[in-house]
Amino acid sequence: MSKKRIILTGDRPTGPLHLGHYVGSLQNRIALQDSCTQFVMIADAQALTDNAHDPMKVRDSVLQVALDYLAVGICPEKSTLFIQSQLPELPEMTLYYLNLVTWNRLKHNPTVKQEINQKGFKDNIPAGFMIYPVSQAADITAFKADLVPVGEDQRPMIEQTNEIVRHFNRIYKTDVLVEAEALIPKMARLPGIDGQAKMSKSMGNCIYLKDSSEEIAKKVKGMLSDPGHLRVEDPGNVEASSVFTYLDVFDQDLAALEEMKAHYRRGGLGDSIVKKRLNEVLQDFLAPIRKRREEFAKDPETVMRILLEGSKKAQQTTARTLEEMKKAMCLNYF
Amino acid sequence: MSKKRIILTGDRPTGPLHLGHYVGSLQNRIALQDSCTQFVMIADAQALTDNAHDPMKVRDSVLQVALDYLAVGICPEKSTLFIQSQLPELPEMTLYYLNLVTWNRLKHNPTVKQEINQKGFKDNIPAGFMIYPVSQAADITAFKADLVPVGEDQRPMIEQTNEIVRHFNRIYKTDVLVEAEALIPKMARLPGIDGQAKMSKSMGNCIYLKDSSEEIAKKVKGMLSDPGHLRVEDPGNVEASSVFTYLDVFDQDLAALEEMKAHYRRGGLGDSIVKKRLNEVLQDFLAPIRKRREEFAKDPETVMRILLEGSKKAQQTTARTLEEMKKAMCLNYF
Repeated sequence: MSKKRIILTGDRPTGPLHLGHYVGSLQNRIALQDSCTQFVMIADAQALTDNAHDPMKVRDSVLQVALDYLAVGICPEKSTLFIQSQLPELPEMTLYYLNLVTWNRLKHNPTVKQEINQKGFKDNIPAGFMIYPVSQAADITAFKADLVPVGEDQRPMIEQTNEIVRHFNRIYKTDVLVEAEALIPKMARLPGIDGQAKMSKSMGNCIYLKDSSEEIAKKVKGMLSDPGHLRVEDPGNVEASSVFTYLDVFDQDLAALEEMKAHYRRGGLGDSIVKKRLNEVLQDFLAPIRKRREEFAKDPETVMRILLEGSKKAQQTTARTLEEMKKAMCLNYF
Repeated sequence: MSKKRIILTGDRPTGPLHLGHYVGSLQNRIALQDSCTQFVMIADAQALTDNAHDPMKVRDSVLQVALDYLAVGICPEKSTLFIQSQLPELPEMTLYYLNLVTWNRLKHNPTVKQEINQKGFKDNIPAGFMIYPVSQAADITAFKADLVPVGEDQRPMIEQTNEIVRHFNRIYKTDVLVEAEALIPKMARLPGIDGQAKMSKSMGNCIYLKDSSEEIAKKVKGMLSDPGHLRVEDPGNVEASSVFTYLDVFDQDLAALEEMKAHYRRGGLGDSIVKKRLNEVLQDFLAPIRKRREEFAKDPETVMRILLEGSKKAQQTTARTLEEMKKAMCLNYF
């Protein structure tokens, strides 16, 4: 029997999760938690790298993210849910890895460069933000994860991790650390309800997993459809309408969807009808998630206990890896 | 009764200690260990920031440095001797502090800039090296040290630490962290035996605390005296001779030393006579140190046990500080 693959994945707790998270990662995690050993990290320490001045946002979001995880079906019996800051081994590994990465290499990480522009740091880039790829390398390698589900734009992070793995194993003459493979989802990104390429809290274009029935209906009604589709009788462009993009992802009735697309293309199908269908589909999809979320939210102590147990279990793994690393580095004095 | 001041001090274990260490820091530590609460750190993790490829040098030097400490009279009953890598709280604090320091600020640290030039890193500066001032801030603040004995060139490190302290306390609305004061020794630096400004292993101009009687005699004989003092009968320049600089530090017979200086100035005193006196003085000074060192070296298990006990004790302190910090940062989940 071949060994189960090990997954490290997670989210920065900076707010509740949305449909973009579902498409980009959550559904993969649900699908993989049976066949793989999966660690799901709520990355509070990483969230602080660019939210150091707003710790309460991070703190409050930890519970929100945990509720979202449990609501969508990430199951604590199958996946280990944990809080990053509870594992002291991760910063320790990060500092050892920083000795193996040059200052220049960090400066030229394409993902980080792009994010710096987006966040408008200018000359005030927190050093903690610049080094977060190394911190991610610690997260991944601490679990000896060989599979990391990430978006295409995060591929350089996995490359950075594997560089560190090879460097560490070579200079300390060991095979303690394991290279990881990026698992890129088929659909990397769900567009925002405004038609922007990415659903993102800061852009205010999200449908959250916890949104009420009314909020969903309102957001779907306001969605951007084909901007060239001015009159009902005109032919519409399915590919230009985010509404159809969402239907492609969430509508299980493929035959009816194909029929609707054909109708839209030849003209005579109003956007309000398409949106009505999307609203039905999303209401059906999100109602049971919202219901489970409300159940868990009634008992936050239980949720926090799940995170505590998960953190303890995760920590046993990272402690073992760090011990092996320190032995290879001749830092095992006692 | 006023509270005892807290000292954090230490050395990178990259080789045995020499007379420069004694003058620059060890004698201060011996003098202060009765009146202050003193933590003495063997900074193996920091040594790795520019010795990542040579962990055995660091590993072996840990015991050497501990032997030097014990030999000169740093007493484990009075000072807490510990190994940096045994305290997981330090990297954890370092990562939180890195969020409060900008990338630009790190680049412009004058001490680090100077060391980068000296070490010839060029474009290959390890990121771990660039951030070591922040790691030092963690070392100092973890013990709430308010007094840090450093050379004049290390003053910017204390400034960086205090910036972090103020920033942390302000944004997390706390007074957990304590500002530190630099304690600059009267004589910051003992010149090398070659007359260079600094005694340094990499320059090969050291007299080590563990040097044998023969090594000391040979090194003193080869020392640079006043280069203008060509013939015995010529007047000599006391200030231009490292031999007199050493006598100023180590010769207890001040009257005889003044007489010797006067004789040297007016001419007729050969450098070999002055060196003979220095050799006597250093032999007397180093013989009991070497003897104690040899005694401790016979029983390395005891020395390592001292470091283990010290590390445990130190860790209790750093764990307490980190707990307070995490509470202020709202990271106290459980």
